[in-house]
Amino acid sequence: MCEALAVKPRSEMTPQPGLAAQARHLIRSGAWTTHTGGMAADYVQGNLVVLPAEHAADFLLYCQRNPKPCPLLGVADPGSPRIPALGADLDLRTDLPRYRVWRDGEVVAEPADVQALWREDLVSFVLGCSFSFEQALLESGIRLRHLEAGKNVAMYRSSLMTRPAGRFAGPMVVSMRPLPAAAAIRSVQITSRFPQVHGAPVHVGDPREIGIADLAHPDYGDPIEILPGELPVFWACGVTPQAALTGAKLDFCITHAPGAMLITDLKNNQLASF
Amino acid sequence: MCEALAVKPRSEMTPQPGLAAQARHLIRSGAWTTHTGGMAADYVQGNLVVLPAEHAADFLLYCQRNPKPCPLLGVADPGSPRIPALGADLDLRTDLPRYRVWRDGEVVAEPADVQALWREDLVSFVLGCSFSFEQALLESGIRLRHLEAGKNVAMYRSSLMTRPAGRFAGPMVVSMRPLPAAAAIRSVQITSRFPQVHGAPVHVGDPREIGIADLAHPDYGDPIEILPGELPVFWACGVTPQAALTGAKLDFCITHAPGAMLITDLKNNQLASF
Repeated sequence: MCEALAVKPRSEMTPQPGLAAQARHLIRSGAWTTHTGGMAADYVQGNLVVLPAEHAADFLLYCQRNPKPCPLLGVADPGSPRIPALGADLDLRTDLPRYRVWRDGEVVAEPADVQALWREDLVSFVLGCSFSFEQALLESGIRLRHLEAGKNVAMYRSSLMTRPAGRFAGPMVVSMRPLPAAAAIRSVQITSRFPQVHGAPVHVGDPREIGIADLAHPDYGDPIEILPGELPVFWACGVTPQAALTGAKLDFCITHAPGAMLITDLKNNQLASF
Repeated sequence: MCEALAVKPRSEMTPQPGLAAQARHLIRSGAWTTHTGGMAADYVQGNLVVLPAEHAADFLLYCQRNPKPCPLLGVADPGSPRIPALGADLDLRTDLPRYRVWRDGEVVAEPADVQALWREDLVSFVLGCSFSFEQALLESGIRLRHLEAGKNVAMYRSSLMTRPAGRFAGPMVVSMRPLPAAAAIRSVQITSRFPQVHGAPVHVGDPREIGIADLAHPDYGDPIEILPGELPVFWACGVTPQAALTGAKLDFCITHAPGAMLITDLKNNQLASF
């Protein structure tokens, strides 16, 4: 494997032209089948959702109605595994380390490529993920303790409801990062600049306000303690569309496996809105 | 008096060219000797500090070292009561409704003009105040309950210390507004755009983190209840320099009286940083 692409603290990474393409090639070769956090850290990573064309219009509408949890970075033409705007050579069938295959709302397989499952009627959506704004937070000196502990971020099904579209509906899933008050304020400023990767927080403070009874028991990811002087800060999370897919019970769809993202050629700082 | 200039909810005010000058003329005539909140609401209002020249360099340094509580809008030449950049015709000796005269760190008089006290060695400073950012919050639909109740904002001496300069030092005074979480997040975004009128909050959440033992007993202004679902949000406050003046025990200085501000010709939206 390539040392330069190994997982390391994202703040230590420096931009290298072509690193995103190198990472995709490594993944495509089958040599990397796990998390992409920290790989090519200056590049935007994305969530993948692949659906039969009959559901694509509804899903597109769902994303447009719920831009904070479902920020669209790109949509492929029907049958195409390519989105050139996100990477000239990218192939959505092979360039993610691990996929989830869903049938009737259940995960039935987690393969490392989906070439054998590809169909001419599949439409692919790439959505922004929190890795980009976490990188911006780290570069501003904000400590993210889940990363320091090597844990996944804590995620919760909230009582905030998404705006439905067709069969797609359900609760907004939120990720939570404990931050001291000054960092919480700064994090609003920083993440406001990145609307395509979830943008500003959706909540801060009392978790019961958004229907979360117990922070110690996240619905996804790993729990993290709130230390004295910290506030829980909640962002819309890219798991939201997966929750909507579960509820929609489509006969077939494909997503990335958690943490195993598409690495695009976009730089994080290209997403900054001002 | 002029009906157009009467205090009313700031959100109901619409821009009118020359309204700031009209308000200053009304005040100069002696017909208005009380609060300026709500007068010419689209125009920037400022705190006034007038010092003997021997202390001016230290006070200027104090402001530059503490831009959040002491955001400088303008400084007059020694002996001059004019700052043309803030209003072509303004006269700092007559254009505020009420002043405070300080001797040896104590308020000794609250006159409606200070022409008789003016000296050739006095240097005047105008500092941004929270009226501008409150106006921006109101225009974004954020409710400010102290205004709705006709109260002064609650202010506290915090344990955050200012960076000293010469004889000027002391705690940062903060103003507190209770806001629901979504409004608290939005308020960070909005006030970040206005660094010349205190900018982003300095704290959110637990008041003990910044040395405030009891929100029900503010050091200045009126108490306000924190309702269920609200967070206390704290901004640096323009009372900070007055606290520093008290500590500095200058033999003589002049400030505005609380709430009786200088109305400038700058529009609030001219201060927006992006």
